[in-house]
Amino acid sequence: MQPVRHLVSIDDISLEEMTALFRAADRFSADPRGFANFAPGLITASLFYEPSTRTRLSFESAMLRLGGGVLTAAEMTSSSASKGESLADTVRVVGGGYADLIVLRHPSEGAARLAADYSPVPVVNAGDGSHEHPTQTLCDLYNLHVERGRIAGLDVVLAGDLKYSRTVHSFAYALARFGANIVCVPQPGFEMPDYVLRRLREEFGVEPMRADAKRLGALAAKTDAVYLTPHKPHQLSLFTDASHWEVEHVDAVYMTRPQTERYSDGERQQRDYLRIEKGSMGAESLRDAVVMHPLPRRDEIAADMDDDPRSIYFKQTARGVPIRMAILSWLLGRLPEAPLAAPRIDVNHRSKVAHNPCPNPSCISRTETRHASPSFAVIARTPLRARCGYCSREFTFRFVGCASTRNYHAPESHSVRQILPGNLVFFSDRDQAEEHGFHATQSVLA
Amino acid sequence: MQPVRHLVSIDDISLEEMTALFRAADRFSADPRGFANFAPGLITASLFYEPSTRTRLSFESAMLRLGGGVLTAAEMTSSSASKGESLADTVRVVGGGYADLIVLRHPSEGAARLAADYSPVPVVNAGDGSHEHPTQTLCDLYNLHVERGRIAGLDVVLAGDLKYSRTVHSFAYALARFGANIVCVPQPGFEMPDYVLRRLREEFGVEPMRADAKRLGALAAKTDAVYLTPHKPHQLSLFTDASHWEVEHVDAVYMTRPQTERYSDGERQQRDYLRIEKGSMGAESLRDAVVMHPLPRRDEIAADMDDDPRSIYFKQTARGVPIRMAILSWLLGRLPEAPLAAPRIDVNHRSKVAHNPCPNPSCISRTETRHASPSFAVIARTPLRARCGYCSREFTFRFVGCASTRNYHAPESHSVRQILPGNLVFFSDRDQAEEHGFHATQSVLA
Amino acid sequence: MQPVRHLVSIDDISLEEMTALFRAADRFSADPRGFANFAPGLITASLFYEPSTRTRLSFESAMLRLGGGVLTAAEMTSSSASKGESLADTVRVVGGGYADLIVLRHPSEGAARLAADYSPVPVVNAGDGSHEHPTQTLCDLYNLHVERGRIAGLDVVLAGDLKYSRTVHSFAYALARFGANIVCVPQPGFEMPDYVLRRLREEFGVEPMRADAKRLGALAAKTDAVYLTPHKPHQLSLFTDASHWEVEHVDAVYMTRPQTERYSDGERQQRDYLRIEKGSMGAESLRDAVVMHPLPRRDEIAADMDDDPRSIYFKQTARGVPIRMAILSWLLGRLPEAPLAAPRIDVNHRSKVAHNPCPNPSCISRTETRHASPSFAVIARTPLRARCGYCSREFTFRFVGCASTRNYHAPESHSVRQILPGNLVFFSDRDQAEEHGFHATQSVLA
Repeated sequence: MQPVRHLVSIDDISLEEMTALFRAADRFSADPRGFANFAPGLITASLFYEPSTRTRLSFESAMLRLGGGVLTAAEMTSSSASKGESLADTVRVVGGGYADLIVLRHPSEGAARLAADYSPVPVVNAGDGSHEHPTQTLCDLYNLHVERGRIAGLDVVLAGDLKYSRTVHSFAYALARFGANIVCVPQPGFEMPDYVLRRLREEFGVEPMRADAKRLGALAAKTDAVYLTPHKPHQLSLFTDASHWEVEHVDAVYMTRPQTERYSDGERQQRDYLRIEKGSMGAESLRDAVVMHPLPRRDEIAADMDDDPRSIYFKQTARGVPIRMAILSWLLGRLPEAPLAAPRIDVNHRSKVAHNPCPNPSCISRTETRHASPSFAVIARTPLRARCGYCSREFTFRFVGCASTRNYHAPESHSVRQILPGNLVFFSDRDQAEEHGFHATQSVLA
Repeated sequence: MQPVRHLVSIDDISLEEMTALFRAADRFSADPRGFANFAPGLITASLFYEPSTRTRLSFESAMLRLGGGVLTAAEMTSSSASKGESLADTVRVVGGGYADLIVLRHPSEGAARLAADYSPVPVVNAGDGSHEHPTQTLCDLYNLHVERGRIAGLDVVLAGDLKYSRTVHSFAYALARFGANIVCVPQPGFEMPDYVLRRLREEFGVEPMRADAKRLGALAAKTDAVYLTPHKPHQLSLFTDASHWEVEHVDAVYMTRPQTERYSDGERQQRDYLRIEKGSMGAESLRDAVVMHPLPRRDEIAADMDDDPRSIYFKQTARGVPIRMAILSWLLGRLPEAPLAAPRIDVNHRSKVAHNPCPNPSCISRTETRHASPSFAVIARTPLRARCGYCSREFTFRFVGCASTRNYHAPESHSVRQILPGNLVFFSDRDQAEEHGFHATQSVLA
Repeated sequence: MQPVRHLVSIDDISLEEMTALFRAADRFSADPRGFANFAPGLITASLFYEPSTRTRLSFESAMLRLGGGVLTAAEMTSSSASKGESLADTVRVVGGGYADLIVLRHPSEGAARLAADYSPVPVVNAGDGSHEHPTQTLCDLYNLHVERGRIAGLDVVLAGDLKYSRTVHSFAYALARFGANIVCVPQPGFEMPDYVLRRLREEFGVEPMRADAKRLGALAAKTDAVYLTPHKPHQLSLFTDASHWEVEHVDAVYMTRPQTERYSDGERQQRDYLRIEKGSMGAESLRDAVVMHPLPRRDEIAADMDDDPRSIYFKQTARGVPIRMAILSWLLGRLPEAPLAAPRIDVNHRSKVAHNPCPNPSCISRTETRHASPSFAVIARTPLRARCGYCSREFTFRFVGCASTRNYHAPESHSVRQILPGNLVFFSDRDQAEEHGFHATQSVLA
């Protein structure tokens, strides 16, 4: 029997699969009311452990448009959860007979991964804390596909709070995978974080360059723009000084709201948030740039933009329905043009020792200890780096053990390179290692 | 393309359209489970910014009976709204692709009008603060149509709290439009307010007369009844002393609960609320009067009335489903007998100056300033009177400006009569006028 | 016209009807997505006055699988109820036209009985306080039917908190009706209460015997097991010493969570709750016992049992959908193999005197006095015992009146035996009797 496919992370899905979904979404979009017999007798369950009406309604509309049924648990905290039920049990119950697919929203990072580990039916991540929201990313990409006919090679401005916006980080990774270029126009103090830039470089070969933003006009007046391109410098040298990119033509401006709920007190003081309005969109380079926003917006896009033909943010959210129709029917096995292949290779290893090195206190591996079985992925071997298999947060550690020899070492030790990935154990100090019965080697004592 | 029809106010819909809806409701009523293929692939969204389970379930039942789908956001405040999203954005998102019709409940007066201004799909007002609830009124009228076969010429008692009940005011206007007579039997201290009586007279030609209520027996023992009739006194003179009407036969008694949530402290002290029970319904004139109530009731109708054949309040609420089936299918363009004509003429003017004279602090034009564009309707020219285009509250003002000449005047000034309605601007004092760059004329200085 | 059938108590339904429902559930189970045209145009309403997401979703999934529509009021308290609407009015409104069947969850014992008294459509009790939850019981029985092919004669262990678990009490009565044997393995201090044991004996002829639990191994190490069997001692004597049963082979272990929300402070101190884990399930007698749990579980079943082939608790809850499909389609008159016969005889009498002797403060007869009409059932005549017709709580009383003669007596008086059951009135003291105009007889004065 084929393993169940889930959509936990945008990484779970190949470019080919995304493209097939876009084609299906085109078809649904052309006749949104014409598929009412597409999924008869099938049921999705919206399990929302925090409210997100917009996301929920978008999924539920998609399922109703496909002729399926919808179960709604919009406020999961008020119920069984308060009787202490674990997420792992809940998805086994709901996926065991109530529903054919689970749409999960949860405040803990990694929750959707844990749910997918236990659910007998597909799980779609509708947001897990500040971690991932892959259908939002697919919706954003789908909009570029519709508006521009392609994604590779586009120049996309990401503007506003690039520090805390989960949406913008996921979008950036996805743009990089598709080979689009990114122009960062951050709110000062809210630049794209280093760990995002590092992942863009390490996994997608993206090089950051200082950008000459004068052709962006008022939009970039307050900030230094950065250009991120998947092209190698030598490829670029045909066009430009390899360390300095001049932005000439923008295909899309993706604006994000200030994520004030995650701000420090100092950050909350900040005023004069970037604002897109007729005035700031006057530069020649922005002449036919579509303006996107994941919504809800507050004041970062002025109402005077609403009638501007470049503003597609309401269309953008409307397209969330056909793309979710495609995602749901694909995972339910009803999409001939996108057969349900085996999922992309799972890079996670289960920890062989009952020890959880994840530093993220709101990671599901920390909040639901009964059923989470700590796991990790190796990012690099020299020097060794690893991240949590649930929340993707990178580990910090001072010693590395081998679950087979029960020895532990300094990370830079030669012995560490010999350890099979699945046998790696990460310790923050000697006490921790010894408590788990590991023995220090020379490299530790040195 | 035809403009989208909405149902924001009972004023939006003509008597002919109402009658067509009643006929459609008769058809739905005759076979409530026989229309499950009437609206396949169509979706309504219940956006409820305050809870009203009964109203919501009635709409949702109607849509399910038509074979359509339902999206439910029963507690809108807990979601995007708290991230600061405006109503205008929400309806553009939900109406932009999620749903084919929006059912809106909102605590701010005028909210449904604002929503209709922005929504790409029909908006049905399911209650906006203390303003309107047109489908309740249509349901009440439909019940008279079913029970009595007509509305014109009926004698309808309105009893209880006639001061604060939105339902009863809307019902009174609608009865007047249909040419029914109204007998007011208010709870002492909770008489029909002057502004309602004035509108009944001004817009519907209704004359109030003192009524001789002795034939109402115990029902009117505690109160002075008032008779409101759309007939001219000379028409009545055939039957009666023109200033005094003797109630002989009542077709319906419409009872309302005390709207305690709106009472002043003094009003809350009040005891002995009117009560309909076997005893108070014993008068000969009430022999075959149907007893109506919009529900929920508390003690104002005694349980001993529940088995009385005149009590139709449970039937009344049940008929809310077929009439809402008619309304939904009409607005969705699925009702051949009621084609979607252009809406009744919009009497509202957009203010040409960014100044909002609405005195109602909970009007949507005050609570959602980002997207509300102040508007007004002229009630009368001499003396000039106007009301808010959202919440219908009458303006109070001391000066009147002309947006074209930028002059402002005393309201009784001759110049004011020359101002085109669309150019009117209403100021409460000279400072306000001058701030907006208006110049005083002689009539002001005088 | 046939009276409406409800499912308020497991007592409402005959063994034959249950068996027919099991057969229908088998059919639904075999092809859960194949019945999407079974109930077109029909609607159920979930009226939940307290949250219970799992139960609600199970019912709603069942209705969607049948192709019907679902109305959801998941948080009834926040709405009309707060405007003071009675349950009796709400079910008349919702059942009067909105829905074809009501699924009711309510915190007051007896609420579903009251709702059934007033509802024009079938009411299914989805839990009324600590009283009944009959579809859970049917689901549990159905699982035994599927797993063991029969219920009569099975040996079923009930383990854990047998004192407060409503589920376990209802299950015990039902097992007794079907002729299964029960082995009680209570958490110490949380034994099966006397009133349950008494009802088992009085109504189902169940005899309790001390059980020799050594063959249960670790499972019963901390506690004294009790064996409850519907067999007469002389029937047993073929196999065993009539006062002592040796448990040899167990068919099912039904584990329950600690009902901590009902615990006294002292009870809450208690530690070391019974726990089912690989270790405690090692005894030979448990070799092929299925492990059941109504869920949610906390720690009383260890995660290491989840992969054990004997663990069926996730299957058990999944089977809640087909059995509820059977229940809903039966009550909606769509189940040919289970015709809607007249309900089992109602044993309740309406009190002829406006006096409510129910001692349970959270009984619906005490919390909704406007529409509840006190009622009772006679349990025994000598000595006279009676229970509330809503919440089933047994009355305590010191005097007994006759509504016909208006005399009252000591309960043991000969005159009491002459009173027709419908005329019985129960008083806690003389003042109460005299207040209602009853006269003391010799037996009282003596």
